[in-house]
Amino acid sequence: MSFVKNAWYVAGWAPSEDVRLFSRTILGKSIVFFRKTNDQWSAIENVCPHRFAPLDKGKVVGDTLQCGYHGLRFDEHGICVHNPIGNGRIPKAAKVDSYPVIEKYKLIWVWTGDKEAADPAKIPDYSILEDEGWVHATGGYLHCNANYQLLIDNLLDLSHVAFLHPLLGNEGMSGGKLDLQETDTTIQSNFFMAEIDSPPFYAPRYKEGSKVDNWLNMKWHAPSSLLLDFGVTDVGKSRDVGLQGIATHILTPETDGTVHYFYSVGWPTEEDAAANVEQHHEMQGKIFSTEDKPMLEECQKNMGTTDLWDLNPVLLSGDAAAVRARRFIGRMLAQEAIEP
Amino acid sequence: MSFVKNAWYVAGWAPSEDVRLFSRTILGKSIVFFRKTNDQWSAIENVCPHRFAPLDKGKVVGDTLQCGYHGLRFDEHGICVHNPIGNGRIPKAAKVDSYPVIEKYKLIWVWTGDKEAADPAKIPDYSILEDEGWVHATGGYLHCNANYQLLIDNLLDLSHVAFLHPLLGNEGMSGGKLDLQETDTTIQSNFFMAEIDSPPFYAPRYKEGSKVDNWLNMKWHAPSSLLLDFGVTDVGKSRDVGLQGIATHILTPETDGTVHYFYSVGWPTEEDAAANVEQHHEMQGKIFSTEDKPMLEECQKNMGTTDLWDLNPVLLSGDAAAVRARRFIGRMLAQEAIEP
Amino acid sequence: MSFVKNAWYVAGWAPSEDVRLFSRTILGKSIVFFRKTNDQWSAIENVCPHRFAPLDKGKVVGDTLQCGYHGLRFDEHGICVHNPIGNGRIPKAAKVDSYPVIEKYKLIWVWTGDKEAADPAKIPDYSILEDEGWVHATGGYLHCNANYQLLIDNLLDLSHVAFLHPLLGNEGMSGGKLDLQETDTTIQSNFFMAEIDSPPFYAPRYKEGSKVDNWLNMKWHAPSSLLLDFGVTDVGKSRDVGLQGIATHILTPETDGTVHYFYSVGWPTEEDAAANVEQHHEMQGKIFSTEDKPMLEECQKNMGTTDLWDLNPVLLSGDAAAVRARRFIGRMLAQEAIEP
Repeated sequence: MSFVKNAWYVAGWAPSEDVRLFSRTILGKSIVFFRKTNDQWSAIENVCPHRFAPLDKGKVVGDTLQCGYHGLRFDEHGICVHNPIGNGRIPKAAKVDSYPVIEKYKLIWVWTGDKEAADPAKIPDYSILEDEGWVHATGGYLHCNANYQLLIDNLLDLSHVAFLHPLLGNEGMSGGKLDLQETDTTIQSNFFMAEIDSPPFYAPRYKEGSKVDNWLNMKWHAPSSLLLDFGVTDVGKSRDVGLQGIATHILTPETDGTVHYFYSVGWPTEEDAAANVEQHHEMQGKIFSTEDKPMLEECQKNMGTTDLWDLNPVLLSGDAAAVRARRFIGRMLAQEAIEP
Repeated sequence: MSFVKNAWYVAGWAPSEDVRLFSRTILGKSIVFFRKTNDQWSAIENVCPHRFAPLDKGKVVGDTLQCGYHGLRFDEHGICVHNPIGNGRIPKAAKVDSYPVIEKYKLIWVWTGDKEAADPAKIPDYSILEDEGWVHATGGYLHCNANYQLLIDNLLDLSHVAFLHPLLGNEGMSGGKLDLQETDTTIQSNFFMAEIDSPPFYAPRYKEGSKVDNWLNMKWHAPSSLLLDFGVTDVGKSRDVGLQGIATHILTPETDGTVHYFYSVGWPTEEDAAANVEQHHEMQGKIFSTEDKPMLEECQKNMGTTDLWDLNPVLLSGDAAAVRARRFIGRMLAQEAIEP
Repeated sequence: MSFVKNAWYVAGWAPSEDVRLFSRTILGKSIVFFRKTNDQWSAIENVCPHRFAPLDKGKVVGDTLQCGYHGLRFDEHGICVHNPIGNGRIPKAAKVDSYPVIEKYKLIWVWTGDKEAADPAKIPDYSILEDEGWVHATGGYLHCNANYQLLIDNLLDLSHVAFLHPLLGNEGMSGGKLDLQETDTTIQSNFFMAEIDSPPFYAPRYKEGSKVDNWLNMKWHAPSSLLLDFGVTDVGKSRDVGLQGIATHILTPETDGTVHYFYSVGWPTEEDAAANVEQHHEMQGKIFSTEDKPMLEECQKNMGTTDLWDLNPVLLSGDAAAVRARRFIGRMLAQEAIEP
């Protein structure tokens, strides 16, 4: 497995205060997250160094996490601070890895690389999730048996919407125009389709069959956080008069062949669509789980564990943004290989 | 995996005309079968060369198969003839393998080797399936987690009927006489049991316990198509006065450790048994799935991935035909290794 | 896989007389057990040398086991004594391994090593299971996806009871005192907790919250048979006035990563607890299957196939007996490596 380590990854949507403990495997490491008495999160390795018990089967005791097998307690730094057995001596080696963790934008972000470099300012901007001008349905989570880069490829090449998602697109979309922009931390892939049949997703505002302009602007923040600005409007008119939505698509590699996918959908508060945001969220989950996920898992199965480039894929113009993102990740990996 | 490639293998029982698309893994390759507008079948590799999507998730458009992910269309030769994305340019490398395919004897046959050698005359003779003198219950399909040669061994050594199939045999059968014949393309294993208790399968015509002569004549056509001529008759009498049936047993390797099994049973049209042919077919499926299949899968599990000969099996006289078939296949493999 | 071979392992609780055949995988070998006409058990390799069929799918015929595939019959020595096919000749190589087997203490014991060394006197002493002074609920069986040594570690370090088993212990137990004794064949780990809150398991005799002295005396007989003498009594009083139970915990390695676990619980016949021995047995099974088993399987998963020592575990004082048992097993393995 080779992953970009110096990055903030989402471990989960921020749960309610009564949730004090959960775990997630990220970049192949099982990490347990627990809240201290001040409600802040800690993140430590999810394996007790005594008998290799999963610490997430234990319980939070004060500012520590107590192993559920023999009772050793670990603090936020992963250091064993209490041994209830016998003379209570704590072996020096009784410690586990710890990870910087921050709750921000209703999400829990964990840093998997060099702790010194864990700058909160590097967290991708999802402030729109806290913007009062928007109503978001958050909390979406799906698991997919594919490498996370296949999901980035999928999201950065939305020409697939025309064929894979009858609710969101139609084959008329395939003539869309693509515009790419790249910065030091992002790649923007803007897909614009003029005068197409309105996809069913935008009904009843735009009746099926009525003509619309449709945009799908996907922004990728390295290495795996995406944000989609999407919508339809009257042909040739400004987007203001149309329907505009925001969808988050955040990926966290679990292992080489599996990925966590966190998603949400939002509409402007004043928009009539906002009333149905939960319904759109459900729709989004259904589309991903019944259309993208099976396709991506089959593609991964066909690829096996071979790297995409070693399989000599036939590239199309729609792959441009995805190819740039793969190169971007390649540069990050090379950089980390030099300065680990 | 080493398989005989220059051969016709059954991909399936011919479906009704409204079925335009199906796929099957044969000799380790996933192949998608689709019908052109003239109803003829095409067979191409089931993996899009763009993003490795399974083409069987797409749809038939005219004489082409359209990928369900980004809309590339492939013709019967596996060549991409349409790219709906962007400028529509078709990369030269956008092609997949294609396979000769023929519908014959109510079966779909596919050739997995050198296309030049794909002579329809080499299709094994199952004309009896279209003979009006017979009523067949076709369409039988089972999947088995064992190498296809274990199933050939099983079918060519019917001495196992005495022990594994209480409905078809009894221990009295074990004294049967074996006669073998071999041609350039076939091995015939004739098993004859004089004056045994009639197996329950032949009731009510021959009551259980009444004495009969029983024959089981299995013909193997290289590499894996079998046809059984079987029946019972009054002791010492000609077969004409008895009950004679025909069963097809056609094997297609899926992978090294799994096999597709296509079967049918038939009775002469004028025979009273013909009225119950569907019931016999159901019985046949039940016997295979509850008696042969578990036994073969357990044997395979005990053998692991080791070749039979490397396990030094203790051979019995009943193995004679199976051993010949294995040698026959060995010669075919050696031949293909020389002239691939 | 490296296991101590010269040892008696439990293959199962002795079944009723109508059970004539069963199989179990022990030290990675599938063994079939069948009864001769004199009701004595035989144990032979569970794979027919002809076609590698599992012999446990056959049937007992007189003093032999008949293969369910082609009818070969094997005697208690694993020698083929009957071939029903063709001329009936029996190939010399038609034989399988056989194993010494004895029914004793309501258990079936099999010897997996050098037959000459299979001395019945080496069977660990479970005579208490036949002692009329005790009422035992026997027959407990569970399967666990962990190496058998992890279960020995678990049973020899009962400090885990305080954290893993709310019904059997409480955190007050963690101050218990440990006393170890070692003989040529056993390690005894005596765990004593003075004046603790009585665990719920001992209600209604000792109400929850009342103070008791609690003992857990675990005796390990190499390589994997354990016997627990446990109970509570009034603080500072003799054990006679308290509640004393006996639990067997017998482990048989199935494969490197899986184990058979045979257990029972017993109370003195005159004890009021004896009336509820079946209920205690059910409780014991529930505790192991919902508390120990998941924990052990997760530990094993975290350890992978790496040996415990290669993982540099942080050892605590409670591990003392388990570490001795591991060293003991290490010496036995070394001995067998020299004189195989």
